[in-house]
Amino acid sequence: MLQYARPLQRLLNAFERLPGIGPKNAQRLAFHLLRVEEGEVQELAAALSEVRAAIRPCRRCFNYSEGDLCPICADPRRDPAAICAVEEASDVMAIERSGEYHGLYHVLGGRLSPLSGVGHDELNLDSLLARVREGGVRELILATSPTVEGDATALEIARLVEAMVESGEVTTAPRVTRIALGLPVGGDLDYADGLTLARALRGRTPVGET
Amino acid sequence: MLQYARPLQRLLNAFERLPGIGPKNAQRLAFHLLRVEEGEVQELAAALSEVRAAIRPCRRCFNYSEGDLCPICADPRRDPAAICAVEEASDVMAIERSGEYHGLYHVLGGRLSPLSGVGHDELNLDSLLARVREGGVRELILATSPTVEGDATALEIARLVEAMVESGEVTTAPRVTRIALGLPVGGDLDYADGLTLARALRGRTPVGET
Repeated sequence: MLQYARPLQRLLNAFERLPGIGPKNAQRLAFHLLRVEEGEVQELAAALSEVRAAIRPCRRCFNYSEGDLCPICADPRRDPAAICAVEEASDVMAIERSGEYHGLYHVLGGRLSPLSGVGHDELNLDSLLARVREGGVRELILATSPTVEGDATALEIARLVEAMVESGEVTTAPRVTRIALGLPVGGDLDYADGLTLARALRGRTPVGET
Repeated sequence: MLQYARPLQRLLNAFERLPGIGPKNAQRLAFHLLRVEEGEVQELAAALSEVRAAIRPCRRCFNYSEGDLCPICADPRRDPAAICAVEEASDVMAIERSGEYHGLYHVLGGRLSPLSGVGHDELNLDSLLARVREGGVRELILATSPTVEGDATALEIARLVEAMVESGEVTTAPRVTRIALGLPVGGDLDYADGLTLARALRGRTPVGET
């Protein structure tokens, strides 16, 4: 019903396809871009044009990368004896934001989901096992999502590593850990769901230990 | 601190410059675009590249336009005897969404603001007066914002039109009206500020009239 100039409508349509951007928001963005310096618009357009061609999976950990190795794998200050397995590259950044972890990562590319046809071969599992097999890995942190499928994926990885250790394929067995589940910091006990509370209780630690 | 691949960081920076897009949102958008079909990303990039070159002000009403006349001015079904003056082109779309108005528009390009150096000549005022002078305008609706400056702009336009009528420059005097101020539909009386309530009371209409 609304009559926009065609190039404006095209931009609105493209914005509205983005997650979390409704018609109102798309219009706000488009009108903003019609007002600002033209260079700013062209910079966004260029960044978009470039990103898909310029970004590829890191050869080692499958994180988003410009070169052969992602910035984290290429950083000599990171501890190569720790690997944190996550589902998606965006999870890498979530953990980086915590500032708590200084090891390397391994992006699985999803989680095991037999119902959706995601099995062992659909994930970057063999490459993870190969990294463990190479040796030098002291700890493997399983940071898949706290869901049924994420838990199953973590259990499967733990099982595979254990099998490798038992068969003697890897000499030094890495410690395999799972990120803790519990109450979010600042969260209200009253608002926590029963499952979260149950995990928080089960994972209780002696006072003063964490 | 976070180590993103450079092309990804470039896209994040460009997104974060947009209004209402914080770092978290920028990341969500960027990661989305890294996952979707490449064509979708290129379509957004192309729409952005095109929009600034392809959009220009409508020759008649200064609304965003692709051709000489905007879609509204070019639509023969619109009533040319009504002109609604608004501050920005985005206001045109806000009024269009109401579905209440079927006349033409005039985008002023802002509102009078002596403190910011916006005077008569900075706005599309002479072109509005010229449209009135041409004749055939039955009503001029002043839909500038309900602020001190918006009110002052409306008053000034009303004064200029009145002067034109008095000097005989225009034969048929248009009705000059101001959009109503009052409580928003669905709003709670309890939450309305005093000024809005005062305007709502002052603008009261007989029951059954609107």
